[in-house]
Amino acid sequence: MGKKIVIVGAVAAGPKAACRARRLMPEAEITIIDQDTLISYGGCGIPYYVSGEVPDEKELRSTSFHMTRDERFFQEAKGLAIRSGTRAVSIDRAKKILNVEDVQTGHTDALPYDKLVLATGSRPFMPPIPGNDLDGVFTISDLHKAIEIKERLSRGEVGKVVIIGGGAIGIEMAEAFVDLWGIEASIVEFMPQVLPRIVSRTIAAMVKGELRKHGVTVYTNEAARQFVGEGGRIRMVVTNRRELEADLVVVAAGVRPRGELARDAGLLVSPQGAIVVNQRMQTSDPDIYAAGDCVETLHLVSGKKAYAPMGSIANRQGRVVADNLAGIPSVFAGAVGSFIMKVFDACVGATGLSPETARMEGFDAAEALGTQSDRAHFFPTYALMFLSLVVDRRTRRVLGLSGFGAMGDGLMARINAVASLLETGRPTISDLSTLELAYAPPFSTAVDILNATANTADNLVSGRLRTITPEEFISWIRGKTDHPDWMAVDLRHPKEAALFVERFPDRWMALPYDTVRSNQEKLPGDRHLVLICNAGTRSYEIQCFLDSIGMVDSSVLPGGLNVVKRMDPSWMP
Amino acid sequence: MGKKIVIVGAVAAGPKAACRARRLMPEAEITIIDQDTLISYGGCGIPYYVSGEVPDEKELRSTSFHMTRDERFFQEAKGLAIRSGTRAVSIDRAKKILNVEDVQTGHTDALPYDKLVLATGSRPFMPPIPGNDLDGVFTISDLHKAIEIKERLSRGEVGKVVIIGGGAIGIEMAEAFVDLWGIEASIVEFMPQVLPRIVSRTIAAMVKGELRKHGVTVYTNEAARQFVGEGGRIRMVVTNRRELEADLVVVAAGVRPRGELARDAGLLVSPQGAIVVNQRMQTSDPDIYAAGDCVETLHLVSGKKAYAPMGSIANRQGRVVADNLAGIPSVFAGAVGSFIMKVFDACVGATGLSPETARMEGFDAAEALGTQSDRAHFFPTYALMFLSLVVDRRTRRVLGLSGFGAMGDGLMARINAVASLLETGRPTISDLSTLELAYAPPFSTAVDILNATANTADNLVSGRLRTITPEEFISWIRGKTDHPDWMAVDLRHPKEAALFVERFPDRWMALPYDTVRSNQEKLPGDRHLVLICNAGTRSYEIQCFLDSIGMVDSSVLPGGLNVVKRMDPSWMP
Repeated sequence: MGKKIVIVGAVAAGPKAACRARRLMPEAEITIIDQDTLISYGGCGIPYYVSGEVPDEKELRSTSFHMTRDERFFQEAKGLAIRSGTRAVSIDRAKKILNVEDVQTGHTDALPYDKLVLATGSRPFMPPIPGNDLDGVFTISDLHKAIEIKERLSRGEVGKVVIIGGGAIGIEMAEAFVDLWGIEASIVEFMPQVLPRIVSRTIAAMVKGELRKHGVTVYTNEAARQFVGEGGRIRMVVTNRRELEADLVVVAAGVRPRGELARDAGLLVSPQGAIVVNQRMQTSDPDIYAAGDCVETLHLVSGKKAYAPMGSIANRQGRVVADNLAGIPSVFAGAVGSFIMKVFDACVGATGLSPETARMEGFDAAEALGTQSDRAHFFPTYALMFLSLVVDRRTRRVLGLSGFGAMGDGLMARINAVASLLETGRPTISDLSTLELAYAPPFSTAVDILNATANTADNLVSGRLRTITPEEFISWIRGKTDHPDWMAVDLRHPKEAALFVERFPDRWMALPYDTVRSNQEKLPGDRHLVLICNAGTRSYEIQCFLDSIGMVDSSVLPGGLNVVKRMDPSWMP
Repeated sequence: MGKKIVIVGAVAAGPKAACRARRLMPEAEITIIDQDTLISYGGCGIPYYVSGEVPDEKELRSTSFHMTRDERFFQEAKGLAIRSGTRAVSIDRAKKILNVEDVQTGHTDALPYDKLVLATGSRPFMPPIPGNDLDGVFTISDLHKAIEIKERLSRGEVGKVVIIGGGAIGIEMAEAFVDLWGIEASIVEFMPQVLPRIVSRTIAAMVKGELRKHGVTVYTNEAARQFVGEGGRIRMVVTNRRELEADLVVVAAGVRPRGELARDAGLLVSPQGAIVVNQRMQTSDPDIYAAGDCVETLHLVSGKKAYAPMGSIANRQGRVVADNLAGIPSVFAGAVGSFIMKVFDACVGATGLSPETARMEGFDAAEALGTQSDRAHFFPTYALMFLSLVVDRRTRRVLGLSGFGAMGDGLMARINAVASLLETGRPTISDLSTLELAYAPPFSTAVDILNATANTADNLVSGRLRTITPEEFISWIRGKTDHPDWMAVDLRHPKEAALFVERFPDRWMALPYDTVRSNQEKLPGDRHLVLICNAGTRSYEIQCFLDSIGMVDSSVLPGGLNVVKRMDPSWMP
C-alpha cells in the first residue's frame, strides 16, 4: 500500500492536490473530506449563476467535458475516496490522526494520515452591524447561499438590493442584479473608492462612472451602521449619511481565512488567522501541507506577508502541494495580485501595487496615466484603453499597473505582461518601454499603450512631464479647493474646444496643438496653464515646447479629457 | 544653435526619433528626408486598406486625433524640417555631410550633420522568377502599390489572385481579397507550412485549416517557377506542380534591409545587408545611428544575430536613438519575435522560437500542446484556444510559444506574458506553471491555459506524458506511414465516439474516461494504445493509470481531437 493522504476541503486547492497526487502516486490512498455536500465548484462563477447567464448551478461544478464533479466522479473517474458532509474536528499530530464527524448524524471517526493537506478555505467577513442576522442579509459563503438568492429573485421577491462592499464580488453581484433582473442596486463602500487597494484612485473613479452609467448607485466614503427589519426581514440599510430601502442585502466585505483547525492543532498561523506555510506549502508541521484561501502568502512586490484568496492561486498551490507529497520540490513563491473583472460594458484590471498601496508601503510612488486606442485607430473596432502605471521615483522600479477599457481581453493582455515581470524579477521603466508585445493593427498599436505609458512614466520621473491629477483638475474647475490662478489651454480642434470656452470663459482658451509654436504670444504669461487634449500626449509635447521658451508654469492633464469624462462628466458642457 | 541632426527615412523609426529628439532637444536643428512623398504611414495597415476596412489611405498616415501626418504637420505641429521626395545619395563621413538629390528635378544638395540617423527601411524581396516584371505582379513595397492594387480591385479587373508566400503579409492579403472583394485567392508557399519559422507546424496546420474554410487554397511545399503573361499582363502562375490562373499576383516573400547607403559609406553591415548597430543603436561610426527595418538585431532567445522588420520594433528603436542623441543612455537589447495576426475568424500568434527553429538552433526542443477553453466553460462566449509551448528538455528553459484561437485579444494575453519573460530573463517551465495571470470567469479559467500548457510541458519532459504528434496520428489513420499495431481508445462520451468506432472498427474503441479503472480488462494488451479525448487531459490521466497497472505501451494524442479536427477534418466521420 502507498502513503495515506488525507485532504480537508474539496472546493479548489483540495481537489487539485488530490487529482495531481493520484497521477503522481498511483499507490497512495487519498481521501478528501468536506463539510459541504456540494463540492468542487467554481465559486468565482457565482455572480454569473445569480445573474442567470449560467442557468444551472451544476455548470459551476462540472468539468469542461460536462461531467458533474460529484462524489461519484471523484471516486470512479479520479480513483479518490471522498467523504462529503464530513467536518474535520481536530488534528492529533502526535498520532497523525484527523478526527472527523458526520455533519448529519454527528457520528465521529478517526482518519489516520501519513500526510495531511489543509484546504479549509475562507469565510466571508460579516461586519458587526446590528441586524446582520435578519432574513435577507446574505454573504456569499457557498453555493447554497447563491441558490437561495436566485430563488428569491425568481419568485419576484426582490426589487431593491443594497450591497455592502465595493470590491470585486460586490460589483459583480451589482451587475448580476441590475443587468439581467432589472433590480435597483446600490453599493455602500466605506473607503474613498471602489476596488480599494486593488486599482488606482483614477481607474476606480472610471469604474464608478461605468456603474453609474448602468444605474448602480455607489456611495463611497460611507459605512453601513444598521440593518433595519420588518417582521424579521430586511427592509432598510442605514448608513452614516442616509437610509436605503432594501429587500435583500449582500454583504461582500471580504473574506477571512479558515485557520482554526490548524491553529487549534498548534500550527503556526498569522495574526489574521491564515496558516503559515513555506514556499513548498508546508505548515510548521512538515507532515501537514496547506493551500488555498486558508494560507498566508508573500506579496512579491512589497516583500511583505499578504493574503490572496483567489481560486486561480488556490489551484496553482494545490499542484505544488501534490508535487511535494510525491517528492518533487516545486515551489509557490508568492503572489503579485493579478486581477481582472467585467463591469457591464467595460473591464478593469490590475497587478502589483496600486499607487495608494505603494505609498503606504513606503515607496516614493509616481502614477503615470496613459490613454490610447486599444488597437490601430484606423481599425474599425477600436476603443480607448486607460492604464495607470505605478513606479518608484528613486529606483524607476515598476510597482504595479491598473487599467480600464472596453469589455474584452485587451486589458488582460497588458496586465498579464506586467504580472509576469513582477512575478519573476524587478522590472524597471525601461523594461516596459522596449517590451516587445505582439503587434498587428487588429490587436494593438505600433507603440503599444503599455510601451507608451512606460514612456510617460519615464518623462514623469525624469522631471520632463509635470502633471495635475484628474481629481485635482475636477476640483479646480468646480472651485472646490485652493488653486493658483489657472487657465485651461485646450489644444484640440477648435470645434472640440468651443463649448468649453463658452462654458468657462475666464478659465478656458482654445489654441490648437499645431498652431502653438506660431502663436505663443496668445498664452497668458502670468497664469498657471493647464494643458488639455484628449489623451495627454499633445499636452506633453506642448509642455516641452513651453519649457523651451521659458514658460515653465504649466501642468499637463494626464490621460486627457477622456479620463476625466469617464470619471465624472457632470461638469462638462 | 543646437546640434544638426539629419534623419534619412520618414516612415516609422525616422519620425519617431525626430519627434522624441525635438522634445528632448528644443534647440536642435532636425531635418528628415524621404524619397517618397507619402510619409509616416502605418504600413502594417495596408491589407486593411486594400480590403476596404480602412476606406482612405489618409487614415494610415493620420494621428489618433485625425491630423494627416504630412509635411505641413511635421513642420508646424512638430517643429521639424522635412524634405520629402528627396533621396539620400551618399554619406561623406569625413566632412559629415549627407548628399541628397531631389527625386523629381535631380537637383542635388549637401546636408551637413552633427549626428545622422539612418532609417532607410526595407524593400520586398522579389524572387528571380521569369515574368516577375509583368504588369499585375506586385510587391507591397509602399503605399503607392497598395493604392494601385485597390484601384484595380475597384475597377473590377481582378477575379483571381495568386499570392507568393504564406507569411503574415501573404495571409493578410489573401483575407483582404477574399473577405471583402469576393476574389478567388490562393497562396503558394515553398516551405512545408504557412508562417514558417514563426509558429509551430501544428499551429500552422490549423491556420491552413482556417484559410481553407474561408475558400483560400494553400499550396505548401510548392514553388512558383514562372509568371506567364498575355499582352504584357499576368495571366498564370506556374508552380512545380500546377498552373494557376491569375489576374493579379502579390509577391510577399519577405523583405530585405536597405543597407546600401550605409554599406557604401563604409559602415559595418551584416552578410544580409542589414546595418550593424550596438544596443544604443549606434553604427560603426559613432556619429551615425540606425533604426528600424534596415538594422540587424539580436535574437534574445537564440542569442544569435537576427533580422526583425516590424513597425513596432522600429518605433521602439527610434525612441532609443533619440534618447542617445540627447545623451540619455537608453538601450534596445534585442528582439524575441512577438507576433500576432488575424486570420478570418481566428487569430494566430507567437513569441520566441518555434519548435522547428529551436531544433535548428541546436536546442533539444519539446513541444507541449494545450487545448482549453479561453474563458470559464460555463461562461457563454467561450471558445477553444490552442497553445504550443516550446521548451528545452535538458534545461527546462522556455524557448517559445505559439497559439491559435478565436479572433479577439485572448491569445495575445498569453503571448504577451511569455514575451515579457523571454525578453527579460530565462524563464523555465515552473515559472509558467505558477504564473499569476489575471483571472475572472469572463476572461480565463482558474488554471489558465498557459499554466496548464506549462504543466503539460512539465509532464512531457519529466517522462510522465508520452505523445504522438497530431501529424503522425493523421498519417497513421490514413495508413500512410509505418506504424505499430495500434488501437485508438476513445475516452469521450460513447455518443461522441460512436461514429468513429463505426468508421474504423478495427482501430477505434470506446471506453469512457470514468469507466477505465473498472474496465481495464477490455483494453487490448498486445497493441499500442492511442489515448484520445477532446483536449488531451483525460488521455494523460488514463496514461498515468495504465502505467500504474503495467500497460505502458500507449501514446496520448496531445491537444486531443480538437487539434486534429482543425488541422484536417477530412478523415473524420
